[in-house]
Amino acid sequence: MKTAYSDNPALALDTVRWAEGKDGIVILDQTLLPGTVRYITLKTREEIREAIYKLRVRGAPAIGVAAAFGAAVLAGGIRTDDPEVFEEQFLEDCAVLASARPTAVNLFWALDRMKRCLKSHKTEPVQAIKEQLYREAQAVYDEDVAISRSIGEIGFGLLKKGEGILTHCNAGTLATAKYGTATAPVYIALEHGWKGDDLHVYCDETRPLLQGARLTAFELHEAGVDVTLQCDNMVSSLMKSGKIGIVFVGCDRVARNGDAANKIGTSGVAILAKHYGIPFYVCAPSSTIDPGTAGGRDIPIEFRKDEEVTELWYRERMAPEGIHVYNPAFDVTDHDLITGIITEKGLCTAPYEKAFTSLGLI
Amino acid sequence: MKTAYSDNPALALDTVRWAEGKDGIVILDQTLLPGTVRYITLKTREEIREAIYKLRVRGAPAIGVAAAFGAAVLAGGIRTDDPEVFEEQFLEDCAVLASARPTAVNLFWALDRMKRCLKSHKTEPVQAIKEQLYREAQAVYDEDVAISRSIGEIGFGLLKKGEGILTHCNAGTLATAKYGTATAPVYIALEHGWKGDDLHVYCDETRPLLQGARLTAFELHEAGVDVTLQCDNMVSSLMKSGKIGIVFVGCDRVARNGDAANKIGTSGVAILAKHYGIPFYVCAPSSTIDPGTAGGRDIPIEFRKDEEVTELWYRERMAPEGIHVYNPAFDVTDHDLITGIITEKGLCTAPYEKAFTSLGLI
Repeated sequence: MKTAYSDNPALALDTVRWAEGKDGIVILDQTLLPGTVRYITLKTREEIREAIYKLRVRGAPAIGVAAAFGAAVLAGGIRTDDPEVFEEQFLEDCAVLASARPTAVNLFWALDRMKRCLKSHKTEPVQAIKEQLYREAQAVYDEDVAISRSIGEIGFGLLKKGEGILTHCNAGTLATAKYGTATAPVYIALEHGWKGDDLHVYCDETRPLLQGARLTAFELHEAGVDVTLQCDNMVSSLMKSGKIGIVFVGCDRVARNGDAANKIGTSGVAILAKHYGIPFYVCAPSSTIDPGTAGGRDIPIEFRKDEEVTELWYRERMAPEGIHVYNPAFDVTDHDLITGIITEKGLCTAPYEKAFTSLGLI
Repeated sequence: MKTAYSDNPALALDTVRWAEGKDGIVILDQTLLPGTVRYITLKTREEIREAIYKLRVRGAPAIGVAAAFGAAVLAGGIRTDDPEVFEEQFLEDCAVLASARPTAVNLFWALDRMKRCLKSHKTEPVQAIKEQLYREAQAVYDEDVAISRSIGEIGFGLLKKGEGILTHCNAGTLATAKYGTATAPVYIALEHGWKGDDLHVYCDETRPLLQGARLTAFELHEAGVDVTLQCDNMVSSLMKSGKIGIVFVGCDRVARNGDAANKIGTSGVAILAKHYGIPFYVCAPSSTIDPGTAGGRDIPIEFRKDEEVTELWYRERMAPEGIHVYNPAFDVTDHDLITGIITEKGLCTAPYEKAFTSLGLI
């Protein structure tokens, strides 16, 4: 079930990797988790696009890496020595990949980066451009790993051995090239030799789509970490029991004042943490800090379809027909509930705008 | 789908009622909700026992009523004129019904009451005893309705037209003879002529067993109330949006100092309500106030099996094998998070022990 991959033997899951010979990309099919661990090799444009569209690979950074790898692989397969024909075909491939998900910013960002790479090498022979594109895709991957690693080291410095760690949703290695963001302190702790009773992670199941149960509990358990799963409404009881020493969550966007949008339920966890006096940290790659957003109320929140709540995995309806459903995908955690925001460039504490500025983040 | 029942035309669901001719009891089979509304008639001892055992009728007060009705019906069917033979058979029937659920206090309480009724009439002819038992069972029912009605009137006095009402789990008409406890203010509001936009109720789905989605959303929607369902982790977002004006929850046991045990998640809702400045009321029949319990830490909490969390309705596993699960069925809400405790004898506010004493509750 495990594949050799990393210098961290515990972190044995690959979210995205090159196929042998770099004529394809290999992804862990996340739609089959946690029941089945199946790596699939994607070689054609349609296979790569479909994998992103169907969430076989998901999580903004991981989507970016998959798109960059995919663009490089497709470029590698273009059979021409004519740079103009090559560019035309490459741009068409990128356009198809970009159509996989409409709102995933990292998808467009990664493909734009690949296109810029081609432009800056377009006077070179086709074979040389292909090699540059492979190199650029690898850089997208390496930089993502470095960001997560740095967040993990800073978060690790906040851990005490044996103290319970709570997390919400999946900001894990499955959502990035490696390490994740909210899970990075745990994986880095493994690299520092922590084991057994040193680490206890508590995962909120995270309704309605259960990313905590299906993905976070899975990837940490695979890495050999002691994992406990609880329903979202059990967090107050868990914190009161004294089992939780620290909270790490990911984020989708951080405003200038430190308000942080993340998976629905995060703000509730923050309020409970404050009530019980437990430190609450947001793990935020600098790319998620948006200088154009003044505060949480400026962050638009996606509301999703009722059936996610009323039909568990679309098999049987668990609520009466005809009622309303409140189903926001995210919520905003006010900055005064956040103990600190961990970016790859350093730990920020209030006042956040000043901290972001002094680290050159905004 | 609706059956005529009550003087409140909106409250058309019967949890438990007599069959025609009183040779059986009719219950709404709650295991089929919300998909199917089916009333089933129970005539034999085994049918009644099985219905309680399989949670076709559930909720402590409703179980008590079903047991009392059941005992009266079984007594009515005993074919003897010999009071001693009659008593022997009746006690055997009661013992079988009592074995249906091991921890449901109202079950034993109701059957003990029926047995005491028989004892106090045992010198009378068998036919007269049977009539007394029917009357006693009806009294159990009527008293339960009166308690819920009184809680509902007091809670109704706290409502403002159009303000959103939040509730957790099911402390509804389906858990009692009628009105419920936490839902009683809403049904009483209907009796006072409130309609349409006057009432908006928000139901927490209440993982892991989804009583809020399956039962509370169902019974309120059946009564014509505007209902919205949300996952438990959406309450913070909902309260922040300004949609919630008041919270009503039920309870399983209240300690002398006002700490209240109720369905898991209740304490978290109370902390969020305090954070957002929203009044939080516990609806507590006086029978749930336990003078023998000093505070919340003296209330034992049942932990239930992992599969309730990891397997949604036991069809497919949604979490990896080998992890731990934290699955308490209840939690305790500290008295300082509770705005008031509504009993049928009056509204209690802090200090609770003094309030309980002055109302003669402890």
